[in-house]
Amino acid sequence: MIEDTAKTESKKAAKKEAKKAEKAAKKAEHRAGNPSENISSLDEEDVSTGKYGTLPLIRSDPSSPKRTFTYLKDLNKSLINNVIWVRSRLHAVRARGKQCFIVLREREFTAQALINVSETVSKAMVKFSSNISKESIIDIEAKVAEVPSGVGGCTQNDVELIVSQIWIVSSSLPQLPLQIEDASRPEKPDDEESLKIRVNQDTRLDNRILDLRTPTNQAIFRLEAGVCRLFRDCLTKQGFVEIHTPKIIPAASEGGANVFTVSYFKGSAYLAQSPQLYKQMAIAADFDKVFTVGAVFRAEDSNTHRHLTEFTGLDLEMAFKYHYHEVMLLIGNLFTEIFKGLRDQYKTEISIINQQYPAEPFTFLDPPLVLQYPEIRKMLAEAGVEIGEEDDLSTPVEKLLGRLVKAKYDTDFYILDKYPLAVRPFYTMPDPQNAKFSNSYDMFMRGEEILSGAQRVHDAQFLTERAKFHGIDITKIAAYIDAFKYGCPPHAGGGIGLERVVMLYLGLDNVRKTSMFPRDPKRVAP
Amino acid sequence: MIEDTAKTESKKAAKKEAKKAEKAAKKAEHRAGNPSENISSLDEEDVSTGKYGTLPLIRSDPSSPKRTFTYLKDLNKSLINNVIWVRSRLHAVRARGKQCFIVLREREFTAQALINVSETVSKAMVKFSSNISKESIIDIEAKVAEVPSGVGGCTQNDVELIVSQIWIVSSSLPQLPLQIEDASRPEKPDDEESLKIRVNQDTRLDNRILDLRTPTNQAIFRLEAGVCRLFRDCLTKQGFVEIHTPKIIPAASEGGANVFTVSYFKGSAYLAQSPQLYKQMAIAADFDKVFTVGAVFRAEDSNTHRHLTEFTGLDLEMAFKYHYHEVMLLIGNLFTEIFKGLRDQYKTEISIINQQYPAEPFTFLDPPLVLQYPEIRKMLAEAGVEIGEEDDLSTPVEKLLGRLVKAKYDTDFYILDKYPLAVRPFYTMPDPQNAKFSNSYDMFMRGEEILSGAQRVHDAQFLTERAKFHGIDITKIAAYIDAFKYGCPPHAGGGIGLERVVMLYLGLDNVRKTSMFPRDPKRVAP
Repeated sequence: MIEDTAKTESKKAAKKEAKKAEKAAKKAEHRAGNPSENISSLDEEDVSTGKYGTLPLIRSDPSSPKRTFTYLKDLNKSLINNVIWVRSRLHAVRARGKQCFIVLREREFTAQALINVSETVSKAMVKFSSNISKESIIDIEAKVAEVPSGVGGCTQNDVELIVSQIWIVSSSLPQLPLQIEDASRPEKPDDEESLKIRVNQDTRLDNRILDLRTPTNQAIFRLEAGVCRLFRDCLTKQGFVEIHTPKIIPAASEGGANVFTVSYFKGSAYLAQSPQLYKQMAIAADFDKVFTVGAVFRAEDSNTHRHLTEFTGLDLEMAFKYHYHEVMLLIGNLFTEIFKGLRDQYKTEISIINQQYPAEPFTFLDPPLVLQYPEIRKMLAEAGVEIGEEDDLSTPVEKLLGRLVKAKYDTDFYILDKYPLAVRPFYTMPDPQNAKFSNSYDMFMRGEEILSGAQRVHDAQFLTERAKFHGIDITKIAAYIDAFKYGCPPHAGGGIGLERVVMLYLGLDNVRKTSMFPRDPKRVAP
Repeated sequence: MIEDTAKTESKKAAKKEAKKAEKAAKKAEHRAGNPSENISSLDEEDVSTGKYGTLPLIRSDPSSPKRTFTYLKDLNKSLINNVIWVRSRLHAVRARGKQCFIVLREREFTAQALINVSETVSKAMVKFSSNISKESIIDIEAKVAEVPSGVGGCTQNDVELIVSQIWIVSSSLPQLPLQIEDASRPEKPDDEESLKIRVNQDTRLDNRILDLRTPTNQAIFRLEAGVCRLFRDCLTKQGFVEIHTPKIIPAASEGGANVFTVSYFKGSAYLAQSPQLYKQMAIAADFDKVFTVGAVFRAEDSNTHRHLTEFTGLDLEMAFKYHYHEVMLLIGNLFTEIFKGLRDQYKTEISIINQQYPAEPFTFLDPPLVLQYPEIRKMLAEAGVEIGEEDDLSTPVEKLLGRLVKAKYDTDFYILDKYPLAVRPFYTMPDPQNAKFSNSYDMFMRGEEILSGAQRVHDAQFLTERAKFHGIDITKIAAYIDAFKYGCPPHAGGGIGLERVVMLYLGLDNVRKTSMFPRDPKRVAP
């Protein structure tokens, strides 16, 4: 797959290649054939000859027609009586006597086309149309016609297309491993029929290129791109600099647990579990405010709805003057900006996704709600759940807390500040007033953690002390500690899991739904 | 370093921890000490008591002062006679009798500060100031004063700061592994002195957090962030969707050469050499136009000025209607937009970088120059270099060609179209008219390749034939071929190496200068 290195490899066989290739190319063209010829033999008096068939493989021939195509999404009454060209998928086809109805699909948009036997449309053309396999890509020339009664089941429902030409651009195998209609079916827990024909997740992921064609998946991944864009734009406006941190790292910083090992020439290296060290080095190197978007790797054997072995991290780190709340509140407002952006710019996508996966709209406060750890212990105690002063929250308790917070404050997003020091990593700055607490925070969406962050210890000597208290071998983290020996401003930051944010914003039940090609302990394909 | 997993790990030691931490925190505070106390013991009649010293470690104390700090970059005559607070690095210090001159540095900006013995400034305070180690972070309170004759060697040269308070926020070790002045020194080939005290590249990279503090490096990585932003914004405007492709892949697609192996639970996996398969799958899955920015891995043992084992790929892929030039020209215009954006928005950065690394300004044409392979064979022949019709270009020939093109067309950027089929990978679409050529292109900056791209074979059967001609084991690329069995539009794309683009735009001599933490066969640290 490698363009850069392939050069050298391919070069060896250079001359031999050419003749073979020429032969292959001719063969392919022959296979694709001249469509008119193919067809005319079926019906010698075909009035539609030259108006339908299979196009030769599109290989960028200079003699290709210069045509303007209309997108399905732009198909509406304003085009009535216009003759247009459309390239789209054949979503469904149904022949009925002298007619053939086709549903065209382009991303999340659908429209109806009609091939009707007439003076210019032959029976053979209708037959040809009705035999095109679903999911093939076709070009049609058609006149836009009004449908006063509306077209059922299509997004473009006030017009239909009366076809005058139909050509296969790229045909699909007739047997599909999953049906787009099935994969698109709404999941209603009270609808037994819909549950029976639901496509299970492994089938979806094994055939991801088909599964991704559903309107819901088209919308999910457009919205996910939106989260990244909003994250970056909001931070760039505030003077953050984007950096790129290495994924291949020399040492497994916390003892080697949950780290993937890589063969690196004659030695070994590891895959970074987070860009944190490098973000912090960028701060020590005067970049002041940085963010990075990139792959993060976790070799955890966790087979849950929310764990992936590879995911996209949205990370930021920022120097502050006196108090880490300068950073924490900036991150809180960043989320508010993202939620507003999604609500305002992705209405259509959210509504398409909700049709298949119904969910309560995501609620948030502006400015965001900030709760203190001691506060939430009280809330939980009132609900009958006792949490020790220095205990962490388990996942079920986090979910319960999410429900309590939602009931009391009507927000699906909140910040939980001042975690017990004992449950945070060694590099977390202890609270200056109460040594049981720390300058750290998590952020939650619908009761699940989506960001963990803190003020970091920026003093090499104190960091060494903290690491020793945690029983960490100082020699293994020497590079980390050294980064703070030449002056470093106080700083804080956090890391966000992109796929979790999208899952929870949309109220989906599995992080695999928001990872285009998910990786977990049991899946590295496709 | 892992916030997410640390929770679980740390929990075990929870209770024990707290007491230890409390002790450590107290110790740290004690070490930092009360500055006034520290100092007053040195000079009992110190009029400056409480006006200088070492601040306690900044741990987000609620009682911290509420102060507004002024950035050095905003320091100019309009502030004369104002008393301001500045937090910055101590870049240089020089004591002279009762005076101490300090050069402050903040990113690429510098200013002079003066501590003068006076009624309110004690000798002890001057002495304390002159002993602060370089690279420490300090807070100063100062009055802005005019310097009619100008301050030599500082970017903010029409004012200086008359200091009334000076505090160490984070002190640096006194011995630096490299001097920022040395690392910032212009590289002039005719200046023997400058060559002698040049900091060599390994010293720089071993101490990257210091090296990155030079004005040039601050500017390089801000400009690099700009390239990414311009790339994404330009494509987003044209309807491209950002995707994230997995870095951990199940099979080494082209026989395992140049691929890093990863231990994946009980099995093995590989690091992706390119997102190409996944970009193409996104096209087969109806995303129409996609881009992705992410880490790309090459296990090549190439120790050159332009090879890295991990770099940032800017990749795009796009469906087209009839001709791959629709895509090629879009990419060409994308580069034009990037070059214009850099020229117009990064003037300051480019000028700072040029002071250390002089280079000819980067030239380009709008629209970009497109040359055909047969054409450049002629150009080369006229320059005395014969290239066979189906030969690839070697790196030295590419460089020569860059010079010829520059001389003839006055552009440092051009597109070379129609490479011989024999030198391109199996998935490249052969030219429909001349089987010796292919629908593929490279793009060049200052005579070096920075993008390789092509129309891909989008027909499963033809792709199989092409792979067989290349002697590739079909079973190993079954997943790739399967992606094209259910209808796929014709498409083309390309991959750009971010670090190379920045290196060549700026006329730098080594790709390690544009990778924040470079990885090569001999370096995985820091």
